[in-house]
Amino acid sequence: MRPVITLLTDFGTADPYVGMMKGVIATICPAANVVDITHHVPPQDIRTAAFFLERSFRYFPAGTIHVAVVDPGVGTSRRPLAIRSEGHLFVGPDNGVLCLAARRPRAVTLTRSSYFRSAVSRTFHGRDIFAPVAAHLAAGALLEDLGPAQRRLVRLPNVRPRRVSRGLRAAVVSVDRFGNLITNLDLASWTSLRRPRLAVGSFVATKLSPSYAAVRPGELALILGGYDLLEIAARNASAAKILGLGSGALVELLER
Amino acid sequence: MRPVITLLTDFGTADPYVGMMKGVIATICPAANVVDITHHVPPQDIRTAAFFLERSFRYFPAGTIHVAVVDPGVGTSRRPLAIRSEGHLFVGPDNGVLCLAARRPRAVTLTRSSYFRSAVSRTFHGRDIFAPVAAHLAAGALLEDLGPAQRRLVRLPNVRPRRVSRGLRAAVVSVDRFGNLITNLDLASWTSLRRPRLAVGSFVATKLSPSYAAVRPGELALILGGYDLLEIAARNASAAKILGLGSGALVELLER
Amino acid sequence: MRPVITLLTDFGTADPYVGMMKGVIATICPAANVVDITHHVPPQDIRTAAFFLERSFRYFPAGTIHVAVVDPGVGTSRRPLAIRSEGHLFVGPDNGVLCLAARRPRAVTLTRSSYFRSAVSRTFHGRDIFAPVAAHLAAGALLEDLGPAQRRLVRLPNVRPRRVSRGLRAAVVSVDRFGNLITNLDLASWTSLRRPRLAVGSFVATKLSPSYAAVRPGELALILGGYDLLEIAARNASAAKILGLGSGALVELLER
Repeated sequence: MRPVITLLTDFGTADPYVGMMKGVIATICPAANVVDITHHVPPQDIRTAAFFLERSFRYFPAGTIHVAVVDPGVGTSRRPLAIRSEGHLFVGPDNGVLCLAARRPRAVTLTRSSYFRSAVSRTFHGRDIFAPVAAHLAAGALLEDLGPAQRRLVRLPNVRPRRVSRGLRAAVVSVDRFGNLITNLDLASWTSLRRPRLAVGSFVATKLSPSYAAVRPGELALILGGYDLLEIAARNASAAKILGLGSGALVELLER
Repeated sequence: MRPVITLLTDFGTADPYVGMMKGVIATICPAANVVDITHHVPPQDIRTAAFFLERSFRYFPAGTIHVAVVDPGVGTSRRPLAIRSEGHLFVGPDNGVLCLAARRPRAVTLTRSSYFRSAVSRTFHGRDIFAPVAAHLAAGALLEDLGPAQRRLVRLPNVRPRRVSRGLRAAVVSVDRFGNLITNLDLASWTSLRRPRLAVGSFVATKLSPSYAAVRPGELALILGGYDLLEIAARNASAAKILGLGSGALVELLER
Repeated sequence: MRPVITLLTDFGTADPYVGMMKGVIATICPAANVVDITHHVPPQDIRTAAFFLERSFRYFPAGTIHVAVVDPGVGTSRRPLAIRSEGHLFVGPDNGVLCLAARRPRAVTLTRSSYFRSAVSRTFHGRDIFAPVAAHLAAGALLEDLGPAQRRLVRLPNVRPRRVSRGLRAAVVSVDRFGNLITNLDLASWTSLRRPRLAVGSFVATKLSPSYAAVRPGELALILGGYDLLEIAARNASAAKILGLGSGALVELLER
């Protein structure tokens, strides 16, 4: 038995904050296999963290405990949560960061301080509440023992594409290391149209490319990428730089 | 039994140096749970590494072996050390990097080459001496078997605040990813004064803020941060940028 | 039994791609000890990845499974491979990335889709083919069961120094975090000459320095570095900046 705990934060890796969290986990549940999803979420960017978590959690085994800490409201009245959804567990603040991944949430508010570090700071609940709760879950604690059920959760607005006449109005939701522009459109959105046409900035596509290498070097292509979402990529180059676009850019997918 | 080894270096993560160390550890002690504290200490910055180690090691379980390698003197006569202090073990060069964390040091100089890699380079003792010694400790070797006792250790000067008339003269010792200015003042320094006043650059505080979100966005606040030290933070913004300050900046904490 | 899997990619760590691979591995082989070599290979830079792998794999225990994914040809007809060589296993695309490390390759083309993820994308074989194959190898699958033997492998040209009259024409193959210029010359190349003289840009050396600290701060030195290769280093400074040189720079090692 080697329970898996994933970590997703905006702490970066230059400071020892993530190491502190791992120390707390190793103290409570030495057997835990701790896996970093990323710690380079832009500071305070709850939407990007929620998006990363929703895209990643499904690749982990059932029973994995996912800790997401992008938490500008730490120390205020925002609630700390643990959630069970579709066989996975999620731990983090009630600010929307868990809401995309946990689609069928059964949530509790974390109130039982015996599952926290003995000293809880006002500024670092990742280390003092969320890491120890995740470690206790990994060690066998039951969700129901962590606190009272919580029905209403904070949800992020405007994360899905919007239906418009003849198609969808979507957005670039992330730009990856390669400069690929990741949209919030999946393959089904594309195939649901008979003669689809996607436009973002000056780029227009009427067909999907089968691979990054199917176009000429530097050329732009629409492709189903590593997020299983439509993305605009350039072969061996950065689509973001070529188009001068980034997160938030408008994407239109319409019937021709 | 899953012994924990932490790593703290200035090697970065773009080169394979840290991976080489982990390979050496996995060869000697396959059961070890290796945890990165950080590898992004500024090159050759022994003080920052010593500070990170001192702030982090306490979150790990007793018996953890902490390897710290910021080692500009590698290949010279500077001594390689292993230390036991307050239930933790520390391995690294005798240049001060271990001296803040290991407050009650029982140290040995590493002389027994049977605990080293068979070939020891002049330039990478992290891989050839410190990683294998840590792995042997994790596998059950005794500190006393690694070499002769070492009484006098290199210590870093001027790491603690200095007493001055009516208070303390302190410093910014680190700037984190969020732009928070971390001082070397703890909560006790603040509460020991009846009417405290902290000044750094153009910023003056006469009270502690309870949380990052207790002030308006962009506003500066004095807060007890994730290091359990007083820090100057700006809500959803970088205090370092706003104040134009960084590591080394003078901090004065005086009675009003 | 705790099999080791190493990962070497150009995915960076800001996106969740590496986390997805680790989730797939944890699902198939929960006992695997996954170690990052680096994920900061410059995008699409197969040569640097091949160099890093060749320099790193030897520090891991026999039986380690090394996954290298720098894969601009993903989704095209380039073959996916698994290789056994000198007691280590290697998994990745047949584009040269494995060819420096696997010197005595016994290779198979990965054709048995029962070892892949159930859904294989056209754009992310790291997650859908290479990670699951590595995990199945870690869980006990036999190389020979993964697909048919593959005799001819893609190899990288011009990776070794070239013999010229009175010596060797070599190159800077990497620049590390410290600004050290790493050459593809080993110690034997140096000692094979009676009166060696190495020149790169405006720097000339006729002797090896024993350590980084053997010269004055800021001074350049030729040294046998952490890669076990000759490198040009500057004490507490960046040789790359001082010389204005980087990867690809010509290095001449000639008899005086």
